[in-house]
Amino acid sequence: MRLLFLGDIVGRTGREAVLSRLPALREKLALDLVVVNAENASHGFGLSPAIATSLLQGGVDVLTLGNHAWDRRDLIGHITSEPRIVRPLNYPPGTPGQGSVVVELADGRKVLVVNVMGRLFMDPLDDPFRCMNELLNKHRLGATIQAAIVDVHAEATSEKWAMGHMLDGRVSLVVGTHTHTPTADHRILAGGTAFQTDAGMCGDYDSVIGMTKEPAVTRFVRKMPGERLQPAEGEATICGIMVETEDATGLARRVAPLRQGGLLAQTLPDF
Amino acid sequence: MRLLFLGDIVGRTGREAVLSRLPALREKLALDLVVVNAENASHGFGLSPAIATSLLQGGVDVLTLGNHAWDRRDLIGHITSEPRIVRPLNYPPGTPGQGSVVVELADGRKVLVVNVMGRLFMDPLDDPFRCMNELLNKHRLGATIQAAIVDVHAEATSEKWAMGHMLDGRVSLVVGTHTHTPTADHRILAGGTAFQTDAGMCGDYDSVIGMTKEPAVTRFVRKMPGERLQPAEGEATICGIMVETEDATGLARRVAPLRQGGLLAQTLPDF
Amino acid sequence: MRLLFLGDIVGRTGREAVLSRLPALREKLALDLVVVNAENASHGFGLSPAIATSLLQGGVDVLTLGNHAWDRRDLIGHITSEPRIVRPLNYPPGTPGQGSVVVELADGRKVLVVNVMGRLFMDPLDDPFRCMNELLNKHRLGATIQAAIVDVHAEATSEKWAMGHMLDGRVSLVVGTHTHTPTADHRILAGGTAFQTDAGMCGDYDSVIGMTKEPAVTRFVRKMPGERLQPAEGEATICGIMVETEDATGLARRVAPLRQGGLLAQTLPDF
Amino acid sequence: MRLLFLGDIVGRTGREAVLSRLPALREKLALDLVVVNAENASHGFGLSPAIATSLLQGGVDVLTLGNHAWDRRDLIGHITSEPRIVRPLNYPPGTPGQGSVVVELADGRKVLVVNVMGRLFMDPLDDPFRCMNELLNKHRLGATIQAAIVDVHAEATSEKWAMGHMLDGRVSLVVGTHTHTPTADHRILAGGTAFQTDAGMCGDYDSVIGMTKEPAVTRFVRKMPGERLQPAEGEATICGIMVETEDATGLARRVAPLRQGGLLAQTLPDF
Ligand SMILES: [Fe+2]
Ligand SMILES: [Fe+2]
Ligand SMILES: [Fe+2]
Ligand SMILES: [Fe+2]
Ligand SMILES: [Fe+2]
Ligand SMILES: [Fe+2]
Ligand SMILES: [Fe+2]
Ligand SMILES: [Fe+2]
Repeated sequence: MRLLFLGDIVGRTGREAVLSRLPALREKLALDLVVVNAENASHGFGLSPAIATSLLQGGVDVLTLGNHAWDRRDLIGHITSEPRIVRPLNYPPGTPGQGSVVVELADGRKVLVVNVMGRLFMDPLDDPFRCMNELLNKHRLGATIQAAIVDVHAEATSEKWAMGHMLDGRVSLVVGTHTHTPTADHRILAGGTAFQTDAGMCGDYDSVIGMTKEPAVTRFVRKMPGERLQPAEGEATICGIMVETEDATGLARRVAPLRQGGLLAQTLPDF
Repeated sequence: MRLLFLGDIVGRTGREAVLSRLPALREKLALDLVVVNAENASHGFGLSPAIATSLLQGGVDVLTLGNHAWDRRDLIGHITSEPRIVRPLNYPPGTPGQGSVVVELADGRKVLVVNVMGRLFMDPLDDPFRCMNELLNKHRLGATIQAAIVDVHAEATSEKWAMGHMLDGRVSLVVGTHTHTPTADHRILAGGTAFQTDAGMCGDYDSVIGMTKEPAVTRFVRKMPGERLQPAEGEATICGIMVETEDATGLARRVAPLRQGGLLAQTLPDF
Repeated sequence: MRLLFLGDIVGRTGREAVLSRLPALREKLALDLVVVNAENASHGFGLSPAIATSLLQGGVDVLTLGNHAWDRRDLIGHITSEPRIVRPLNYPPGTPGQGSVVVELADGRKVLVVNVMGRLFMDPLDDPFRCMNELLNKHRLGATIQAAIVDVHAEATSEKWAMGHMLDGRVSLVVGTHTHTPTADHRILAGGTAFQTDAGMCGDYDSVIGMTKEPAVTRFVRKMPGERLQPAEGEATICGIMVETEDATGLARRVAPLRQGGLLAQTLPDF
Repeated sequence: MRLLFLGDIVGRTGREAVLSRLPALREKLALDLVVVNAENASHGFGLSPAIATSLLQGGVDVLTLGNHAWDRRDLIGHITSEPRIVRPLNYPPGTPGQGSVVVELADGRKVLVVNVMGRLFMDPLDDPFRCMNELLNKHRLGATIQAAIVDVHAEATSEKWAMGHMLDGRVSLVVGTHTHTPTADHRILAGGTAFQTDAGMCGDYDSVIGMTKEPAVTRFVRKMPGERLQPAEGEATICGIMVETEDATGLARRVAPLRQGGLLAQTLPDF
C-alpha cells in the first residue's frame, strides 16, 4: 500500500498548498491513503468544521490533531459525527470524538490511523504507551488491518523514538508531529516499522514555527504580552513522509520524505 | 570559508565515527574549520578532558557543550585552560570557561564560535537572546571576524527558530543541538545566515536519542528507577551541516547537510 | 475517631522527633490512628525497610510516600509484603505495593488510607482524580469504612484544592504533602471533609525544605553541580493535622494543626 | 517599625475585604506601612489602574505584582507614573515600571519594597538571586533604609526558602506570594530576617485558589476548554504577616500571621 502523511498544516498558506498540490501528488505517487495533521489549520489555532470538510473533500482521507484540538470549539460538536477526524487517543474517557479510525479503501483493504500525544513537556494526559498497547490488542496488522499509521504528537524526541521502538513491528508507520520542523531521520526500524521523528509542518518556513517572525521573537526577548501571533503568509512548504508497505505483513518496504514548495530543500519520493 | 558543524557526539561509537571520518572529510570538503558538540561524548554524559584532547588532536577545532557540560566534573578544572572547549554563554557570571572563542586560521582569518542554551523546557539560565546581543556587540562580521557559528543548545524548535531570525545577517550559521535528531530544514535565512534547527547527533540511531532502547522505553512506561541508561553501541551516523561563507560579509553562500555512516539516509555536501 | 497525619519526615532529626514524641501524643490526644508521610525519611531520599519498620513499631500505623518512593530501591522488595506502607495510587498498573490500605482498629472500625500524586509540575502519572473516583467506588464512608484519609502528594496548591473539593463529603481528610511547608488553611470543607493544603515536614526548618542551607542556595545561584544535598540536623518540628470524625458518617467534626518542637510556632489540638 | 504585608488580592471579594478592614487594622495594630500583592485584584487577572488607585487611596502604601502583572494591559501605561506599584524586579531591562521603591514615611524613615519572581516551574526571567544582590548593593539596611520588604512571587517552596536564607540579615522581611495559600511557618531566621513561605491570598477560600470550584476541578479532570475561570464571590479571608522591626538595624523583632474574615482560622498579631 502507498501511504502519505503530511505534518501540521499552519494557516491559510498551508491549507492552500496542501489542497493545490494533493491531486497531482495522489496521482503521481499512486497514493492509496493520505493522512494530514490539521491542528493548526484554522489561522494557526485548531481546525474549524468548514476547513475540515474542505480538506476531506480535497483529497485528504484522515485528519489528525494534537494539543490544539479544541482551539476551535465548534469542532467539538462536529467531531462526533465525522470519524475521519481523529483526536489524541489518550485524552480521558468521555472525550468527544475518537483517537483512531479504521479506513476502508475502495478495494476493501483497511488502514488504522491513530493520533496519540506525548507527555514530556506537555499536558499530563493518559499514558500514551499503555493506550497504544490497548488499542493494538484490538487489531492485527496483516490480518484485520493491512496497514497502520500512528501520528505521535509530542515535543520530546526521546518520547517519539521510544514510541517508535515500542511499536516497531506492530504498525506500518510511526511519525511525529508538533515541532513544525521536518527531521531527516526517516528510516525503517529493526522490526519493519517506518519512522520519522517529525513530519514537519505544511506552512511558511520564513517564520517561527509558522507564525510571523517579529512578534514571536519579541516574546522570547521581552516578557510582556505582545501582538497576537499570526500565521506567516509566504509560500508554504508541504512536508511529510511516504511509505510503501507490504499488504501481507503491513510492514514498510520503502520510506522517503516529501518536501514541496516554499523555502526548504525540495524532495519527492522516487518510488 | 568552508565550515563544518557536527551535532552531539554520543558515547564511544560517536567518537570513533567522528575521529575515523574527519581526516578524509576535511580533505575532501576542503574544510577550514570543524566544530563539534561533545556534551555526550563520555559514555553519554559529559566530556572528559582526555576525550576532549583526543577530539581536538583528531581534527576538531572547537568543541561545544550544553546541559551536560558538567556531568564530568573533571572538565571544570580543564576548561579554564582550554579555550577551544566552549560552554554555554548564558551560564551565570563566574562560571568556569568561556561561552565563545575566536579561532584564528593559519591564514589569519578569524571565526567566532559560540555555544548558547535555550530556556524553554530547560534550566532557567540567563536570557540567551540578550547574551547573544551583548556578545555580538563586541565583534563585527566581515570585519573583526570573517565568520561566526552559533550552536543553540535547546529543546524547543520555536526558541531555535527565533534565535535564528534574531541573529539573521549577523552571524554565518545558527545551528541547533540537544534533540539528537537531524532536521531537514537547512536553508539560508532572509538576511544571509545559514540555519538548521538541529544538527542531529553523532551516534547510533538504533536507540532512544543515542541510549540503548529497552531501558529508555521502559522509563516511559513504568515509573520506577530502572537500569542505568547506556549509550547504544551500533555503528554511528555522524550528522551535521556544512556552510560555505563569503569572507567579505561572513554570510552564507551555500549550505548542505552531512550524514555519513550508520542507519540514516546518507548525504554529503556536493560543493 | 481521632486521627493524626504528619507530613514528610526528612532525615534523622525528623525520624527521631516523630519517634520520641509520638507515644505521648498518642496518649494525650487519644489518637486512634497515626499516618505519616515518610518519603524522605532515609537521609532525605526515600525510605529504607529498616527505618520503615522502626516507624511502624514506634507508633505509626501507616506510612505514605511520594515522588521519592523508590529512592531506596530496597523498599521495592519490602513494600509488597508490608501493606502498611502505601505508595502513590496512580503509578501505572503493575507497580509494586499498593496505593491504599484499609486498616482495622482493635475495636473493628476500619480506616482507608490513600496516597495519590499530583501531576502539575511533576511526573506525568495516571490521572489522580480518576484514580480516586475509581478507588472510592469500592468503599462506602460511614458504612464499609468509618474514616478515610487521603495524602495528596503534589506541588501545586490548585491541584490540591481541586482534589479536596472533588472528594468533599466522600472522605474524612484530604491533606497535602511534598512542599515541606505547613499551610495555615486547615478547615472543614462545605461537604464535611477536613482539608489542609500541606501538612508540612517533620524536619529541621533552619534549612531549604529540610536540606542544609548553603548547598541548596548555591544551586539556585550557580548552575553547576555542587555539594550533595544533605538533611539539616537541627531540632525538628513535627508538623501535621489532627481530625476528629463522626463514625456514623466518616466526616470531620473538628480539625486542628499540630506543630511541636524546633523553630516553628508551636500548636497542639485542644480537643 | 510596624509593617503589614497582605497576599494576592483575588477579585472583588478580596478587594472589598481589604478596603473595609484596613482602616481599623492600621489603627489597632499601629501600622507604619502596608504592602499588598494585587496581581489578581481585577477579576482574578491583573490590576486595573482604577483598582490600583482605589487601593492606594484606601490605606495601602505599596502594591506588588507577579506573573499576572500585565494581564490588564492598561496597567502598562499607568505603572510608569505610579512608583507605588512595583512589578517583578527581574523582568528584562527596559520593562515598564520598577521592581522596587523606597517609600518615605511621614517621619522621614525609609522602607524599601521589592517584588521579585522565582523561576522554578515559572517563566524563565532573569536570575532573582543575582538581581536581589545587585539591588541590595545600593541600599544599607539600618542606614539608608530603616526597613526592607521583599515579596518573592514564586511557586516552589525551595526557591522561597533559599531566597529567605540568602537575604537573611540584609532585609526585614522575605515573604512569598503566588500559591494563594497561607503557610504556618512565620518565623525570624538566624540572621534576623522575618520569613513566611507564602502570605496566602485575600479572597474566598471556598474555591480553587480563589476561583469558583467547579470549572477549576473540571479542568483537572477533563482535558478540554471549559468555562472561563471566575473569582469566587463568598466572603474573603484577608491573609498576611505583620512584622515589628528595630529601626537601628532594620531587622525583625516580632512576627505574626494575620487572617481575618471568611473561612480560615482567625488570627491577629497580639503585639
Ligand atoms: Fe501541537
Ligand atoms: Fe502544531
Ligand atoms: Fe543536551
Ligand atoms: Fe546532547
Ligand atoms: Fe517530601
Ligand atoms: Fe515529594
Ligand atoms: Fe496570585
Ligand atoms: Fe502569581
